[in-house]
Amino acid sequence: MPTRAEIEEAGMAALLGAGVPLPHARRQLDLLLEAELRGLPSHGLLRLPRVIERIANGVTDPHTSGEAHWRGAAFLEVEGRQGLGPVVAMAALDAISGRVAETGIAVAAIRNCDHLGMLAFYAEQVAASGRILIALTISEALVHPWGGRSAMLGTNPIAIGVPAHPDPFVFDMATSIVAMGRIHDHAARGEPIPEGWALDAEGNPTTDAARARDGALAPFGGPKGYALGLAFEVLVGSLTACALGPAVKGTLDSTAPCNKGDIFIVLEPATGAASAISAFLEEVRQSPPADPDRPVRVPGDRANQTHAMRQQGDIPLPDAVWQPILRLAGKSKV
Amino acid sequence: MPTRAEIEEAGMAALLGAGVPLPHARRQLDLLLEAELRGLPSHGLLRLPRVIERIANGVTDPHTSGEAHWRGAAFLEVEGRQGLGPVVAMAALDAISGRVAETGIAVAAIRNCDHLGMLAFYAEQVAASGRILIALTISEALVHPWGGRSAMLGTNPIAIGVPAHPDPFVFDMATSIVAMGRIHDHAARGEPIPEGWALDAEGNPTTDAARARDGALAPFGGPKGYALGLAFEVLVGSLTACALGPAVKGTLDSTAPCNKGDIFIVLEPATGAASAISAFLEEVRQSPPADPDRPVRVPGDRANQTHAMRQQGDIPLPDAVWQPILRLAGKSKV
Repeated sequence: MPTRAEIEEAGMAALLGAGVPLPHARRQLDLLLEAELRGLPSHGLLRLPRVIERIANGVTDPHTSGEAHWRGAAFLEVEGRQGLGPVVAMAALDAISGRVAETGIAVAAIRNCDHLGMLAFYAEQVAASGRILIALTISEALVHPWGGRSAMLGTNPIAIGVPAHPDPFVFDMATSIVAMGRIHDHAARGEPIPEGWALDAEGNPTTDAARARDGALAPFGGPKGYALGLAFEVLVGSLTACALGPAVKGTLDSTAPCNKGDIFIVLEPATGAASAISAFLEEVRQSPPADPDRPVRVPGDRANQTHAMRQQGDIPLPDAVWQPILRLAGKSKV
Repeated sequence: MPTRAEIEEAGMAALLGAGVPLPHARRQLDLLLEAELRGLPSHGLLRLPRVIERIANGVTDPHTSGEAHWRGAAFLEVEGRQGLGPVVAMAALDAISGRVAETGIAVAAIRNCDHLGMLAFYAEQVAASGRILIALTISEALVHPWGGRSAMLGTNPIAIGVPAHPDPFVFDMATSIVAMGRIHDHAARGEPIPEGWALDAEGNPTTDAARARDGALAPFGGPKGYALGLAFEVLVGSLTACALGPAVKGTLDSTAPCNKGDIFIVLEPATGAASAISAFLEEVRQSPPADPDRPVRVPGDRANQTHAMRQQGDIPLPDAVWQPILRLAGKSKV
């Protein structure tokens, strides 16, 4: 198992070798590492080879951080120009965060940059700096409507970061019942998936993970989760004029320019709110559990535990993820 | 069954008789009527007697529309001063909508006014005027944490309104599995509730509606819905400095000043977005249905159908709702 320093060295070598400028490489790698630290490997270093393939294929421009203009005093419109997700996103976030002291709220409406990765990354940073973040993004159509047969919606996650002690409150969740990565995991291991997770390519319910891969994920929470995911897609579409539904491309493959949209809203909390929020979260944690051995958790508790453990030790990286990165790093040194 | 004109006359008489100024009475009644028109009787005229009781008990001030000040150029802080929900809310919404042309986004953070009623009311109006609304509100603790035994969270609905043709897109949903009103309905009819809807006062699962009334509702969608509802409560609390969890009072009773918070965010959509959104929604509706006899719907479709029907005819009002209003109206004429 590689050490964290080895992972960082190989990751940076791979990105720099692909022509990514140093600060952009650092930002992209930080995002992927942070997902590993928080225990979300589906959004971690597994994704590095695809980032590099997309650059090699000319569908991602590693140099740009997008082109921004203020549509209003608190509304930043960002044309991503096929830049790296975290590079364009962090530039937009910095710009609107700088505006919030004056306006109290500001929004960035981003389109046409690559996958932003784990939204908790952004929520955690904004909340740790004392502000609130609401983040939304859409993806290629992977989720079927409630009562439908085919994928018409993205997995459309929402993240919310709110200042609190000792850790900021960080919530990050897709509106699909599971991530498509979980289906791929089951397929790779030849295991069935639970009923209700997915439809096959013909739109029929399936527990065969391999068939589900070509089909559609269920929304979480039945008709309500479907409505929520659709509302988020419509909201992002209305603000960014991005592609929608089956027209969204470039979030999963290595060959299509990415045409989805993302929204960041940064807000100023009320004075002293962090203490009240922290006390309330603690009250929820201390409330009586259904199972005496399993205390009530609040969103982010598990990720924070994992993060604390992993920051002091190694990151468990399967060989199937590590070897391709090593190869990319080696190639880059030639 | 009363005609719509009879309902409006009695409703206005009841409110004016309780000392509500004419424009405030009109606003409160419009909200309740709109819920009936959209087929949401739980948020309709059923609630009128409690509004009037709260005024009589001195916990609601029918005269105020709250006290607002701009915390930032796009951030309106509103102290509701125990005003009527729709009166304070519409004043805040008007103020931030007036600001959005300049800023692109604006937020109202409201605390200490009465129940806002159906959030779709506000979402529909903003979206029909060509802008986007995101609305959040919290309620008394009625929902248990996932893995918990007692009510720690409000039903914490979200509404999103987005301009589209021919009708705006209006989404409005609580984060509880059902409304507490549904539990009361089942209890009144002596019918059991489905498994998974609620816990009793001791925190054990129950299908007895009468026992569930004193217990806690489940969040919708399991752990994800719980996390979402909690994130909304934390977000509203951080922005408004309102009461949280079991400390929230006055959304269900007639005796406690209301101390919850509400958030409205108004945004300017991208130019021409309404056509793209409308086309996407139609694509979703036309996508293959699981059951050929039940086409795929998008949020708001059913409410719009009901609205169109009821606007041309009568509003079906059960006698148990109509008679108390008549009594209040009669009493007011004495």
